Amino acid sequence: MPVKTDNEILTLLADKATKLRIHSIRSTTAAGSGHPTSCASAAEIMSALFFSVMRYDPAKPDHPANDVFILSKGHAAPILYAAWAEAGYLKVDDLRTLRKIDSDLEGHPPTKLPFVDLATGSLGQGLSAGLGMALGAKVDGRDQRIYVLLGDGESFEGSVWEAAAMASHLKTGNLCATIDVNRLGQSEPTMLQHEMDVYKARWDAFGWQALVVDGHDLEALLEAYDKAAATKDRPTVVLARTFKGRGIELAEDKDGWHGKALSGKEADSAVSALEAKLPKKGAVWKATLPSSNGAKAPAAKAMAKPPYAVGGKEAATREAFGKALAALGEANPLVVVLDGDVKNSTYTQDFEKVAPERFFQGFIAEQNMVGAAMGLAARGKIAFAATFACFLTRAYDFMRMAAISHTNVKLVGTHAGVSIGEDGPSQMGLEDLAMTCAEPNYTVLYPSDATSAWRAIELVAATAGPAYVRTSRPKTPVIYGPDEKFEVGKCKVVRQSDKDQVTIVAAGVTLFEALAAHDQLSEDGIAARVIDLFSVQPIDRKTLVAAAKATNGLFVTVEDHYEHGGIGDAVLSALASERVAVHKLAVREIAHSGDPDELLDKFGISARHIVAKVKSVVG
Amino acid sequence: MPVKTDNEILTLLADKATKLRIHSIRSTTAAGSGHPTSCASAAEIMSALFFSVMRYDPAKPDHPANDVFILSKGHAAPILYAAWAEAGYLKVDDLRTLRKIDSDLEGHPPTKLPFVDLATGSLGQGLSAGLGMALGAKVDGRDQRIYVLLGDGESFEGSVWEAAAMASHLKTGNLCATIDVNRLGQSEPTMLQHEMDVYKARWDAFGWQALVVDGHDLEALLEAYDKAAATKDRPTVVLARTFKGRGIELAEDKDGWHGKALSGKEADSAVSALEAKLPKKGAVWKATLPSSNGAKAPAAKAMAKPPYAVGGKEAATREAFGKALAALGEANPLVVVLDGDVKNSTYTQDFEKVAPERFFQGFIAEQNMVGAAMGLAARGKIAFAATFACFLTRAYDFMRMAAISHTNVKLVGTHAGVSIGEDGPSQMGLEDLAMTCAEPNYTVLYPSDATSAWRAIELVAATAGPAYVRTSRPKTPVIYGPDEKFEVGKCKVVRQSDKDQVTIVAAGVTLFEALAAHDQLSEDGIAARVIDLFSVQPIDRKTLVAAAKATNGLFVTVEDHYEHGGIGDAVLSALASERVAVHKLAVREIAHSGDPDELLDKFGISARHIVAKVKSVVG
Repeated sequence: MPVKTDNEILTLLADKATKLRIHSIRSTTAAGSGHPTSCASAAEIMSALFFSVMRYDPAKPDHPANDVFILSKGHAAPILYAAWAEAGYLKVDDLRTLRKIDSDLEGHPPTKLPFVDLATGSLGQGLSAGLGMALGAKVDGRDQRIYVLLGDGESFEGSVWEAAAMASHLKTGNLCATIDVNRLGQSEPTMLQHEMDVYKARWDAFGWQALVVDGHDLEALLEAYDKAAATKDRPTVVLARTFKGRGIELAEDKDGWHGKALSGKEADSAVSALEAKLPKKGAVWKATLPSSNGAKAPAAKAMAKPPYAVGGKEAATREAFGKALAALGEANPLVVVLDGDVKNSTYTQDFEKVAPERFFQGFIAEQNMVGAAMGLAARGKIAFAATFACFLTRAYDFMRMAAISHTNVKLVGTHAGVSIGEDGPSQMGLEDLAMTCAEPNYTVLYPSDATSAWRAIELVAATAGPAYVRTSRPKTPVIYGPDEKFEVGKCKVVRQSDKDQVTIVAAGVTLFEALAAHDQLSEDGIAARVIDLFSVQPIDRKTLVAAAKATNGLFVTVEDHYEHGGIGDAVLSALASERVAVHKLAVREIAHSGDPDELLDKFGISARHIVAKVKSVVG
Repeated sequence: MPVKTDNEILTLLADKATKLRIHSIRSTTAAGSGHPTSCASAAEIMSALFFSVMRYDPAKPDHPANDVFILSKGHAAPILYAAWAEAGYLKVDDLRTLRKIDSDLEGHPPTKLPFVDLATGSLGQGLSAGLGMALGAKVDGRDQRIYVLLGDGESFEGSVWEAAAMASHLKTGNLCATIDVNRLGQSEPTMLQHEMDVYKARWDAFGWQALVVDGHDLEALLEAYDKAAATKDRPTVVLARTFKGRGIELAEDKDGWHGKALSGKEADSAVSALEAKLPKKGAVWKATLPSSNGAKAPAAKAMAKPPYAVGGKEAATREAFGKALAALGEANPLVVVLDGDVKNSTYTQDFEKVAPERFFQGFIAEQNMVGAAMGLAARGKIAFAATFACFLTRAYDFMRMAAISHTNVKLVGTHAGVSIGEDGPSQMGLEDLAMTCAEPNYTVLYPSDATSAWRAIELVAATAGPAYVRTSRPKTPVIYGPDEKFEVGKCKVVRQSDKDQVTIVAAGVTLFEALAAHDQLSEDGIAARVIDLFSVQPIDRKTLVAAAKATNGLFVTVEDHYEHGGIGDAVLSALASERVAVHKLAVREIAHSGDPDELLDKFGISARHIVAKVKSVVG
């Protein structure tokens, strides 16, 4: 591929870079806040990518075959908007609405904008997303390149190195990162400032083609991106040595200018100086369109029914998850799966067996696992990522951004609660419901038996947006048949009578404790309604209200989760205005190693405790 | 320093390694679960460290001047217990209680054991903790070395590379990592298997002295640890090439043996083979004691009173936090502070000014920031770590382990909620209360004005265990005087009368919305009690119950946090059995950029919404 070094292109790109700087200054000054200096350092990089390197249809920013750009340094949002304005998609005048409450041009890029696949603004997430997209393009055989722009400060986030290791391991030659090494962080110079040789050594060692360039030299940038495109066996990182605030004399390479808009007067002066560089009439840019139209999504078949019979062989919900995932993968070619070196515990290995080309071993790097899943999901896949429930806490910032992006990512946590037993508290997910339900657009399901676990996987795959399914380690009885209907937002009333005095709400392993308690209470003449909550978010308020009416507003909830933010609180919240009494049984202290049944009892969530609590509160 | 290569020592160490293997096999077989093969690969490493390299008093595992050992690969706990048994601190017979409900020898190392500073078991956390301890030793001028043993699989956790970058940047020559490169992960071979040159290149590039050795060669290990001790200007990593299951013929270097105990018969056979290597009567080990007695903790003075006058100049709680932290630092030399390149937003720069030697710039790497703080706290410091509330989600797994360890770490989140304004949702902490309150032993305080923010910092510093303080970006009025008394577990009733019809519970910025609503309601003839919750966990149940009695059990809660897991749920939970009605006003969707006041209104938590809600629910 010949390097495009002719003067006309370079002049056009230089002019575009100048215009990007002008727009970034003007829009942040209009907003009264923002990061013009973080934009200015990246002006040549953005110009090179948007007006020479990338193949995309500027009229169709969401065209599936466009090359993809991810602004991982999301605080430079104004220059992203400026680039799309210069490309013709946004109106230049609209850039002045930056950061206003009724504008889509938010402080950091939101997915409402069709050219934003994933919201950024929490640093160090873009490379994982880019890796996911690069893997997706490879799976689909699409000639598509993924460009990710990172800040130098953010490259110290560990997640960046998780992505770096996996990207070279998987030889994603279609992934190209650029680091805008502008030397200055928010509060002081970065750790490495302009030590480009150290940056290069690190990326080399992580298996990337690492190219150090003057990030304000357009010819050098174009040459680097050409090299990147020509390198198929490994990803490329362009290490661009730049100056923060470049082209804004007042602020260039100076401390104290991070995240600060210029005053009106300062902006006028800076813009005048920049405008003086522009020709009266510059060359006209012409887009390089994507190389294909993108393939249509392959057709999905109906997923097989759950194969479990009521009262049949006991199975853990995590095992049923693995089997369901394999069945889903066979039915729907859009499904992809990532795991964090625990596929023989989460049972995602069942999926790997049926669709190895759509299974990605994420090794022990949960942030990148979730981030790559988000990237795959953002480009049309139904992406599952699974590990022990407790280790998803590692990826909470990614999960938070998945909520902000309304990403179609499906997280599955196995080994929830103290019922995992001997491995002890470090391996017990006891805050996973608190963290996932806090995100307002997450669907959160918590199946109790193999059938409902199977249906939970089917349901989240069919429900748009982020989702979490909580599964358990111990084997539990099968209580639902293959034709039982499950819905998001619906619970199951598994025991009821006209004489119920209390409603016991449980899910997962505690449902079976509740059922045992029900039988013991029944022998003692106390009728209890038992609800399998199943859908923690959204919650089945209607059925809970009906239960409140039937059982005099008396509830006992029991859960293998910490007390705050679990199913007890979800029930309380659903009935907040109903003046009910809810007695929560939950894990209230740091847990311990031991036999699962011993632990359920020790931490107060076994049948015995349910019986005692009911007896103490029933009339 | 001469290398200790004489035969007697090497024989003793080889015998100890054999005994460590035997104990690891026997204890896991007795437990019926555990990771004997992950122990076996590390037997020579553990033997070299515990019986030659480290200076410690085996009778006093918690001696402050002992060299420190952190088992980052916590699943190898049996060999840690075995080492302390061979060192004479534990009884060999007690090793058979491994993983039992009444034993401290849990599946992963718990802090109940005096030789465990921080619980491990979530991989990739030990190096950050070790870095924190190494910094603590340097601050105190203590001749103490910190040894961290990592697995190879876990070295792909990004947090390891965050710690690696910061450790070399800060030239912590007293930190020495060992990676047990045993080639096999849980579910398949690791990404790099035995590519020792790649490991070496990565650690070299991250500024460490990287020494590749045969991890079963005791002489080579001792030589490496000698080199490490002699190198003062940078940390050392010993990259030990090992075989998983080494010395257990059945399992050595074989897939499918992760986390699997040997059967009784298999164990007998393996132990017989190992015992055959042992001499009838081996040499007697003698400990090398620590080089000093450790300094006494310096005396703390009383912290200055908050300098704010009621009705005086408005101040943000984040600003008051910074000032309070500086005052605390001046009063108490045990206080250390870490920040994630936002010290000019969190105002930890105020602390840096008064105690620069106790301030650590963590750059943009929140996991390591919290992990290093945990290490500092585990060794006697009162360690604060601060960043935007939203970015603490990045460190949730560390925060979870801080709970499990009961670590004395103090986290402060600034920029809580939509009230940060124009930066938009990626910068808004809206799930921080959900995640911190879920951990049952966290103290969680949420001050509303500068005085209460100051007192919150004073209180968490004086309260043992993990804590979180939530602060806000906007300036708010000062409503408490310097002599107002604040307590953990106590709220403030800021408006009350005998005619109150409803209780409004708020905290932070929404307290001022509640006060405005109170005044408007009062004009309309509705008396409302207003509570400043302040202490979210533990919560002031007594005062809330009294308010319930006084206001007919009618509550409106209003918070700049998502609906699930915030102060509304905390109030509901405290009153769960009281049959009250709680109407929650909270952020219920993904937020947006905009003016802070506009956003409070748009997302339903402004005074106007409180007034409307109260009017709709009062009699």
